[in-house]
Amino acid sequence: LKGKPTLPDQCVAGIDIGGTKIALAVADHEGRIIEKTRFPARTGERGPHAIIEEALTEIERMLGQTGARLAAVGVGCGGPLDRKRGLILSPPNLPGWDEFPVVRLVEERLGVPALLDNDANAAALGEHRHGAGAGYRHLVYITISTGIGGGVIVRGKLVHGVYDGAGEVGHMTVLPGGPACGCGGRGCLEALCSGTSIARRARAKMAAGETSSLSSQGADNVTAQAVAEAARAGDAVATEVWDETIEYLAVGVGNLFNILAPEAVVIGGGVSTAGEQLFGPLRERVRARARMLPPEMINILQASLGGDSALHGAVILGQAARERRPAQSS
Amino acid sequence: LKGKPTLPDQCVAGIDIGGTKIALAVADHEGRIIEKTRFPARTGERGPHAIIEEALTEIERMLGQTGARLAAVGVGCGGPLDRKRGLILSPPNLPGWDEFPVVRLVEERLGVPALLDNDANAAALGEHRHGAGAGYRHLVYITISTGIGGGVIVRGKLVHGVYDGAGEVGHMTVLPGGPACGCGGRGCLEALCSGTSIARRARAKMAAGETSSLSSQGADNVTAQAVAEAARAGDAVATEVWDETIEYLAVGVGNLFNILAPEAVVIGGGVSTAGEQLFGPLRERVRARARMLPPEMINILQASLGGDSALHGAVILGQAARERRPAQSS
Repeated sequence: LKGKPTLPDQCVAGIDIGGTKIALAVADHEGRIIEKTRFPARTGERGPHAIIEEALTEIERMLGQTGARLAAVGVGCGGPLDRKRGLILSPPNLPGWDEFPVVRLVEERLGVPALLDNDANAAALGEHRHGAGAGYRHLVYITISTGIGGGVIVRGKLVHGVYDGAGEVGHMTVLPGGPACGCGGRGCLEALCSGTSIARRARAKMAAGETSSLSSQGADNVTAQAVAEAARAGDAVATEVWDETIEYLAVGVGNLFNILAPEAVVIGGGVSTAGEQLFGPLRERVRARARMLPPEMINILQASLGGDSALHGAVILGQAARERRPAQSS
Repeated sequence: LKGKPTLPDQCVAGIDIGGTKIALAVADHEGRIIEKTRFPARTGERGPHAIIEEALTEIERMLGQTGARLAAVGVGCGGPLDRKRGLILSPPNLPGWDEFPVVRLVEERLGVPALLDNDANAAALGEHRHGAGAGYRHLVYITISTGIGGGVIVRGKLVHGVYDGAGEVGHMTVLPGGPACGCGGRGCLEALCSGTSIARRARAKMAAGETSSLSSQGADNVTAQAVAEAARAGDAVATEVWDETIEYLAVGVGNLFNILAPEAVVIGGGVSTAGEQLFGPLRERVRARARMLPPEMINILQASLGGDSALHGAVILGQAARERRPAQSS
């Protein structure tokens, strides 16, 4: 984000609710973050009310330091959720958050408008406005971590689609008849290329008797990051798993280029931190799958806001709430 | 299209250029078609100038009958083309149409603005405005005939994407490592589910020794329509081919719902005329592949303008040309 935050009359706040941590930001009216912080969610010990109360108290503390008035709040959270009614609907990583009315709670407690969206959409907004996607009007964001999510931006605005179902890029079929996915389907991108799935595929090869340097860590401790590292070190099993990961990912990303011809596909999340080990071969293989586009139009970028993509997006949701636009929507 | 065409002061014309026929329409300022006609392209006998000249003469004849003044012309044509420069670029079905400046020619000859887009985008516009997609702001159109093309409409407007590459739904990978596609890739939707590919898969099964009622027609005469008919009559080989067609198509259409969650996917082109034999099982299988959406949100419709989807779309392009909007674009 360009420029220093101005000393504002009005601030907006962003809340990014994750299964393990809550991230918070206070930003000036242009969305430049003045201060940010995070604290452990401790969802096992306490319910959503206590967690949100801690977040709001923390926001008030940060505001007190700026001396500015709060104008609105944006909230990003893992789905499923009911964006229009402002409800969080039992996300798998937030046990006990059933129909939790986060928007009403924030609005009543702080007396300002609030807006909710899922964290992948929020991260798409963040990367689009302030990150690797800055300057593009037409992009798809993908996050690859425990699961795979995404957000689609057309003409500068998020596409939500019916039932807010757009951007579920993790559930594209990339291998018909492939491994079972948490969604109930088979061969979804998420069932092959999420961090969890990469580790699972590596463990399966070892369980089938293939020898790998990964075995020394104990099969249960194999992570996607360990697979990437072992592949860099030349381990044959890890190299095969990594190569397959890129092949399946190229099917999914290739589909996005064929359907939407975005100016960029931006990839974030833990697995994306492998950097060029992922992006180099991925670009080549997507070019082979989106042949209606000249190769130089296949623009695949690593997210640049690190773990803060969704927090930046939550601030943007806050800006939209302040302007009382139904915006960021379609 | 609702209502009778008004007797207009100003008309717009649409031209749909195909490999075998040229379709023409004259419409009132609201896009209601007053008169339409078609004539054989005879591309083997004559070049693009003679064909376009016949089209323009025919449009003038139709206009003479209405007594109205022409305001603009829209042109739909198979790609590749350069929409912004108004050039047709050697489509496979139009030999000799190399960098053919159709927009300039029409504009100079008739003295009105003209606009060009590919025929699948034009058909998407037509179905969106006047066909099965009327009333939806957010839809994907797919045409399944010799090849497979499409058009993506978000917030009521076509998405063109970089290099006008959006809507190439026929080149989604639906079977990694599958049959070679004309694009140079493998396992594209078009390489499995186009009319040509359906017939090819049936012939391959017969060549491999499977017995089918289709054999009586002579292997070379097998068409997708014959496969659909034989499947309806209970032929085992045809049933298998048809079933696989729907499975692959469900992968592609399921991807569209996961990525965009459109209000509707509208399917046109020759293969779509199989009607419920296609749409019934397709809806069921897409529901199994887009599980993040409630089943009732999976809205898959047969195109309703028959062979005239793209002609209606050409008229809409003409309306846009008249208003000199850069519209229908992103």
